[in-house]
Amino acid sequence: MRLCFFNEGRLGLVRGDVVHDVSDALDVLPAARYPFPRHDLLIERLPELRQRIDAVAGTRTVPVAAARFQSPVANPGKIVAAPVNYRKHLEEAIAEPETFSRAHVRQIQETGLFLKATSSLIGASEPVRIRHADRRTDHEVELAVIIGQRCKGVSRTAALDYVAGYCIGLDITVRGPEERSLRKSLDSYTVLGPCLVTADELGEPAGLDLALTVNGESRQMANTRDLILDVPALIEFASSFYTLEPGDVLLTGTPEGVGPIRPGDEMHARIDRLGEMRVRVELEAEGGAA
Amino acid sequence: MRLCFFNEGRLGLVRGDVVHDVSDALDVLPAARYPFPRHDLLIERLPELRQRIDAVAGTRTVPVAAARFQSPVANPGKIVAAPVNYRKHLEEAIAEPETFSRAHVRQIQETGLFLKATSSLIGASEPVRIRHADRRTDHEVELAVIIGQRCKGVSRTAALDYVAGYCIGLDITVRGPEERSLRKSLDSYTVLGPCLVTADELGEPAGLDLALTVNGESRQMANTRDLILDVPALIEFASSFYTLEPGDVLLTGTPEGVGPIRPGDEMHARIDRLGEMRVRVELEAEGGAA
Repeated sequence: MRLCFFNEGRLGLVRGDVVHDVSDALDVLPAARYPFPRHDLLIERLPELRQRIDAVAGTRTVPVAAARFQSPVANPGKIVAAPVNYRKHLEEAIAEPETFSRAHVRQIQETGLFLKATSSLIGASEPVRIRHADRRTDHEVELAVIIGQRCKGVSRTAALDYVAGYCIGLDITVRGPEERSLRKSLDSYTVLGPCLVTADELGEPAGLDLALTVNGESRQMANTRDLILDVPALIEFASSFYTLEPGDVLLTGTPEGVGPIRPGDEMHARIDRLGEMRVRVELEAEGGAA
Repeated sequence: MRLCFFNEGRLGLVRGDVVHDVSDALDVLPAARYPFPRHDLLIERLPELRQRIDAVAGTRTVPVAAARFQSPVANPGKIVAAPVNYRKHLEEAIAEPETFSRAHVRQIQETGLFLKATSSLIGASEPVRIRHADRRTDHEVELAVIIGQRCKGVSRTAALDYVAGYCIGLDITVRGPEERSLRKSLDSYTVLGPCLVTADELGEPAGLDLALTVNGESRQMANTRDLILDVPALIEFASSFYTLEPGDVLLTGTPEGVGPIRPGDEMHARIDRLGEMRVRVELEAEGGAA
């Protein structure tokens, strides 16, 4: 099953070139009063929601080409991300010390994982808005994992049982000396999309080709089999530090070929079986009260 | 006004030694359906909520000594924190390289700010639960700022206009080589409490004494006037990277005197005009599905 949010908060089921509006299925989720859950209620209730989604699909549809995609996860509690998790990306970072701050280029087992602000999250049809245009800002395409069930202390062998699904992720990054959790958390610097592909539909997350072009020029091309810590290992590592909650996002790290983006650019990202997305790059408008 | 959550989700107004149960005032906040706001609705609506809180106070009360305090902010979108933001703490970190990883001991202007997972958040009456007991885990007491209004690109001079209030914060920390956003995000490693003191009641956030003891032994004693980046400068810096939302927490950094805590310890933290809190330290139970 391929799920998305589109056109200002409609829940969609993607079948081929068509998005079925299945927003009525959201009735399954109870209304709530403050304080709200700190995790994603739809992802938590996805097993029971799926039947209802199938039942309501079919009446209202939109062509995929006409849909405006928002983030397929609406209420993630945290966005966890892996630094330098492909060997060739580690090598390119070591080779260019003027761009990749020394303090940040170490083995992932030593650096651990970092967090991105949930306020940085957008979907595939929203533009990345460049702030600090005087600094180098890079594209990073990666496989994104959506956690389906609360877990901690999970072993590698059981890890994939806790996955709800997958999507394409862009981890937009300002280069420089600051900690990653700052440089990668600017508004619009986390793109997820175009839809969430459930774990049963995707199957094994190793062996997926992923690629990114900028204005048609090839920049990144790799395969998830070359991850240093693969998806089960990342879940084991993350859950050895904190509880993972339904809707938590795990960005698995980017391969070699990262490079700058500028206002006016268009990125095109694709991952096997997860689809593709075109994301525009604009200049952020400054301002006081946002 | 001093606000708290206590005894399993009751909203409280603290006056002297008494907590008034003002949960009825939560009626002001509308029920919502999924997806929920990514920021804190109570903090956003606090100006209109205050009148209602005053109106319903008085009928049901609990002594402060009998109340079990939860986090005074229930739905923070992000928890932002400042590294080495007191000069003497920077000096003690430089002096002890075997404990404070070289990569992490730099000027705050270079390191920037980091994020803590919202899943790490607890209140004053909940225990800190030590995981990875084989590694050194430290107390860090600090002034916590609660953002009241959405803002970005705020100047120092306007920054305090965007503050809803303040509380005491504990930024519990595993020492080691990993990025701060991992080592400081374990479940229960962010303590806020005992209550939120509104900005109008606190006044100027500079010049506040803060202190922490462990089992009665003095460990940290300092004053917020010695912050390298003060509260307005931190808000200016943070909002130059990302939008700050109502309920976002800004931990301002800890002074010198950080040191290890162990299961069985009791921390006592106090900050001028924000009150005090005793927080127990226990050993975390391990387990699969949490």
